[in-house]
Amino acid sequence: MSYSRPSAVFGLVMILISIACQTPAPTGLSETDKAAIQKVVDEAARIGNAPTKDWGAYVRAYYTEDAVVLPPNGPAVQGWALMEPWFAAFPPMSDFRPQIIEVDGRGDLAYVRGTYSMMLTLPGATEPINDTGKYIEIWRKQADGSWRVIRDIFNSDLPVAAPEPKAEEIK
Amino acid sequence: MSYSRPSAVFGLVMILISIACQTPAPTGLSETDKAAIQKVVDEAARIGNAPTKDWGAYVRAYYTEDAVVLPPNGPAVQGWALMEPWFAAFPPMSDFRPQIIEVDGRGDLAYVRGTYSMMLTLPGATEPINDTGKYIEIWRKQADGSWRVIRDIFNSDLPVAAPEPKAEEIK
Repeated sequence: MSYSRPSAVFGLVMILISIACQTPAPTGLSETDKAAIQKVVDEAARIGNAPTKDWGAYVRAYYTEDAVVLPPNGPAVQGWALMEPWFAAFPPMSDFRPQIIEVDGRGDLAYVRGTYSMMLTLPGATEPINDTGKYIEIWRKQADGSWRVIRDIFNSDLPVAAPEPKAEEIK
Repeated sequence: MSYSRPSAVFGLVMILISIACQTPAPTGLSETDKAAIQKVVDEAARIGNAPTKDWGAYVRAYYTEDAVVLPPNGPAVQGWALMEPWFAAFPPMSDFRPQIIEVDGRGDLAYVRGTYSMMLTLPGATEPINDTGKYIEIWRKQADGSWRVIRDIFNSDLPVAAPEPKAEEIK
C-alpha cells in the first residue's frame, strides 16, 4: 500500500463529508423569525398608542440598548438613555400605524422596509395632520432568540410646507 | 454483527462529518467585500460630482435595476427608469461627499450607515447651503461578485426652515 494513494475508506469518508457539508445557498429569514419581528412591531405600536405612553418601555421593547435612531431634521440619537427623552419630546402623536412592506435577512441580521401613518400635532398647530412616511430598520437577533432594532431611519412623504409669503411681497 | 450496532467505520464517518460540518458562527463582511462597496461609493461620488452629471451612469453604477430610493418629503422611487429623472430634477448640487460610518452584513446582504455633505441650491435660493444628513442603504452582492444598493433612505440633519413671519404679524 502506497502512502500516496488514499485508501478506499478515506475516499468514501471524504465523499460523504463533501456531500454532507454542501454549503446551503444563502437563504432569507425563516417564517419564525419574520413572525418574531412582526410581534415586536405590534407590541411597540401597542405601547406607542396607549393613552399614557411609556417611552421607557417602548424603547426597551423595540431597540437594543445601543441602537441608533436617525430622525429627519436632527442629529442621530443613540441608546435607550437618549432615545427615551427624544420620544417624550416628540410632538403629540396618535393612531401610529407601522406597516412592514418587506423583511429579509441572513442569519442574525435582517432589514425591514416599511411605511407608517400617524396623526401628528405639529408645534404651533391646533389640529393634527395625517403624516405618512417610510422607514428602513436593521434588526439583530439577540442571544435569547428575540429580535430587536439596532438601526432605524425614517422620513415623511409630506412635502415641506410652502414658505409663507414674505412681508415685503404683500401689497 | 447486529444491524442495530453501527460499525466502527460508520461511527468514525459520522464523527468526521460532524466535525467537518460545524456551522461557523455568522460573521461579518470580508475586507474584500467592504473594499468593493467603498469602490462603488467612490465611483458614484465621482460621477455625481462631475461637471456634467450623467445620472444614467450614476444610477447604474450604484443601484440594482429594481432598487428603491426613499427620499424625504416625497414618495418612493423604484428602478433605474424612474431614478434617472428623479436625480436629474434634484436641486443643483455640488461637492457631494458620502461617508461610510459603518458597514456590516452576512453572506450576500449588507447594510451601510453613512453621512453625507453637499452644497445644495434650493428652489428660489441664489446661494447654496451646506446640507448634511445621514442614510442607511441595503446592499446586495451580485452574481458577478460586485455589490450594488437595493434600498436607500436618507434625511437631512438641518432643521426645517423656520416659517417666515405671517404678513399680519408684521407691524
